[in-house]
Amino acid sequence: MIKVSVLYPNNEGSKFDMSYYCNSHMPMVQEKLGNACKGVAVEQGVSGATPGSRPAFIAMGHLYFDSMAEFQSAFAPHADVIMADIPRYTDIQPTLQISDVKI
Amino acid sequence: MIKVSVLYPNNEGSKFDMSYYCNSHMPMVQEKLGNACKGVAVEQGVSGATPGSRPAFIAMGHLYFDSMAEFQSAFAPHADVIMADIPRYTDIQPTLQISDVKI
Repeated sequence: MIKVSVLYPNNEGSKFDMSYYCNSHMPMVQEKLGNACKGVAVEQGVSGATPGSRPAFIAMGHLYFDSMAEFQSAFAPHADVIMADIPRYTDIQPTLQISDVKI
Repeated sequence: MIKVSVLYPNNEGSKFDMSYYCNSHMPMVQEKLGNACKGVAVEQGVSGATPGSRPAFIAMGHLYFDSMAEFQSAFAPHADVIMADIPRYTDIQPTLQISDVKI
């Protein structure tokens, strides 16, 4: 199983519309990716290690696939539409990471 | 539900023993945290957005709790033992983030 993580750095003054992300963006992404996408997760940053400290990421979105090939073939046909939706909820340039799920 | 994420930046030349992390460190952490810990996850970085590019994080570990208070009361009594185990698998200073699980 692989995990595609989209990490939104918590830049000073940046905007992130969590409501739009959860209620419009992610459902649209899931619909486009279809059955290749085995699961999604979304988190909102609360703090760093100590209470009240600034979290490194304001938000994180995750998509699970059986393999890198499954992800690529599901994502490629819809990449333009998915990318074009990003400015509707944030002005942050996200960090994308692909990981191998170990546990 | 809250998620405690421990992100290990993929620094040049740094070491990370994934086998020790999955087979010794995380089971020990789970045993210490007991029932307060509702789940764990571990991922190994594969790439960034493009195949073959460098992932931002060499590894990520995640722990789930019902609330921040549950995490703090479960973690505090074992913090010293858990922290002392880190040099056994890595020389990386991790980034810790606490997030609110939205989806």
